Amino acid sequence: MDLVDRLMAGDARALARAISMIEEDVAGAVDVLREVFPRTGRSMVLGVTGAPGAGKSSLVDRLIAHYRARDQKIGVVAVDPSSAYSGGAILGDRVRMQEHATDPQVFIRSMATRGHLGGLCRAANDAVDLLDAAGYDPVVIETVGVGQDEIEVARAADVVGVVLVPGMGDDIQAIKAGILEIADLFIINKADLAGADRLAADLEGMLSLADNSIAGALPRHRPEILRTVAVRDEGVAELVERIDSFFETSGARRAERRRERAESRFLSILSERLVGRAREKALPSTGYRKTIEEIAERRTDPYTAVERVVRKLGMS
Amino acid sequence: MDLVDRLMAGDARALARAISMIEEDVAGAVDVLREVFPRTGRSMVLGVTGAPGAGKSSLVDRLIAHYRARDQKIGVVAVDPSSAYSGGAILGDRVRMQEHATDPQVFIRSMATRGHLGGLCRAANDAVDLLDAAGYDPVVIETVGVGQDEIEVARAADVVGVVLVPGMGDDIQAIKAGILEIADLFIINKADLAGADRLAADLEGMLSLADNSIAGALPRHRPEILRTVAVRDEGVAELVERIDSFFETSGARRAERRRERAESRFLSILSERLVGRAREKALPSTGYRKTIEEIAERRTDPYTAVERVVRKLGMS
Repeated sequence: MDLVDRLMAGDARALARAISMIEEDVAGAVDVLREVFPRTGRSMVLGVTGAPGAGKSSLVDRLIAHYRARDQKIGVVAVDPSSAYSGGAILGDRVRMQEHATDPQVFIRSMATRGHLGGLCRAANDAVDLLDAAGYDPVVIETVGVGQDEIEVARAADVVGVVLVPGMGDDIQAIKAGILEIADLFIINKADLAGADRLAADLEGMLSLADNSIAGALPRHRPEILRTVAVRDEGVAELVERIDSFFETSGARRAERRRERAESRFLSILSERLVGRAREKALPSTGYRKTIEEIAERRTDPYTAVERVVRKLGMS
Repeated sequence: MDLVDRLMAGDARALARAISMIEEDVAGAVDVLREVFPRTGRSMVLGVTGAPGAGKSSLVDRLIAHYRARDQKIGVVAVDPSSAYSGGAILGDRVRMQEHATDPQVFIRSMATRGHLGGLCRAANDAVDLLDAAGYDPVVIETVGVGQDEIEVARAADVVGVVLVPGMGDDIQAIKAGILEIADLFIINKADLAGADRLAADLEGMLSLADNSIAGALPRHRPEILRTVAVRDEGVAELVERIDSFFETSGARRAERRRERAESRFLSILSERLVGRAREKALPSTGYRKTIEEIAERRTDPYTAVERVVRKLGMS
């Protein structure tokens, strides 16, 4: 049986191999994705994001246990955009999830970029497709941080939970506008800490404010605020229930999300491919280095340098 | 006098207008950049980044006062990648800087994305060039957050200060690997709070660890750890001194940074331009929408869709 058949038959080793191929961007990786693509789009994709230290790993750990108790196969893709320059610093985090390591119905994979920007987002989306095709449902996509990349990654999900924790500096300031826009559920974790009530009240206030703002606002679901203490498994059963019910009642929003996801995947793959081809065709051998030197030394501005390439390709 | 002449003569209104042109991506914006480009690269660019709530605005506010006391013109570009979906949520933060609003030797500008990813990073780089050409020195580029985009923006700087604050959750976990790599100076702000010593010790430990790690490590300057209480102006004079001395002694690193910056600017402008032209040429009128629909409905995978475009452009 070839890799794709084994993957779709639920062979975890074939799945792991396919994800590695995507991460390493080897020949054949795209063929695997092409083959599985028609078999994807069936699983619920659950995004979990929030600042470092909010207890996302513990929470995901508990979620795994709850989904397993319902006999669902569950996959986790843990993504850390900001560890780009170290290549995989989050592995320590994952150690806690090892209690599920021997359960063949649980698949956990950490991903970090190896080089270029945008590549991680693409690879994470591809990995979600592979888990989906392999029958994992839900697929959890966990990101660390609250920057633009995390938002992009989270947008790949059908349901997005934003994890907050009481007392991390100026709570409300930390919840950036972009996060507000993508959150379907707010999860106050470590809710037994002092400050949980204040955080909930601040969040409520912020959501009311957002409700009242007219500019560009689409009518939409107002995110619920839930409380958990993941390490003691408190509130997690209710969270799973709220995720289910959100997923079931959000068909229109889900379709819109999937369209947005399709667009951002298309554009990022297109951009990677075009830049790669442009370099090969218009700036072969030392041409690329020379161009960069000229810009660095302020002899050519980057716009003029780009225009030259575009003209050379006959695309101006 | 035309806009570029007025800008280079130090007219703040011309400068503000040019930055708006860049933000709005209007015709003529690129011409302005082309014209000023040979006059850039002279100012020290100082990056200030760190998590929300660390007191970056207060610190930058104090830095302005110190540079003004030395009679330097100072420009600030405040960038918030995560407010992409709201379009300018950080303005509240800037209010505190208004004490300098009447000083013509101080120029402060907030920027947030209006739409596509990557655009903000490009616009911020362009704005730094404009301030540089207008004679502001230093130019401070302040970012909110610690994600990949903030790292990209900070990399545009000659000197990068990472602002931390005691007691924000798991301190060390919050300092992501990428931030470690770009930091030239660590600034523990609000250093009068409990936990400042522990944070400094944790940082020291982490830096020692990094020193000992072999994999991919280039010999480099070990970041200094400084302490400030910005609201009381404590430690800020020393910070300014350390920034100066880092800048003066880091010539080789600076040249390398400027080369990296040239490369990332070139690639991001190239990518924007190629994708734009590809859409016009290969997917005119409803072709683009149709392609996205096909991917969203899983009838075509994104790789195949991209390949079609590349072939149509004669670039395969």
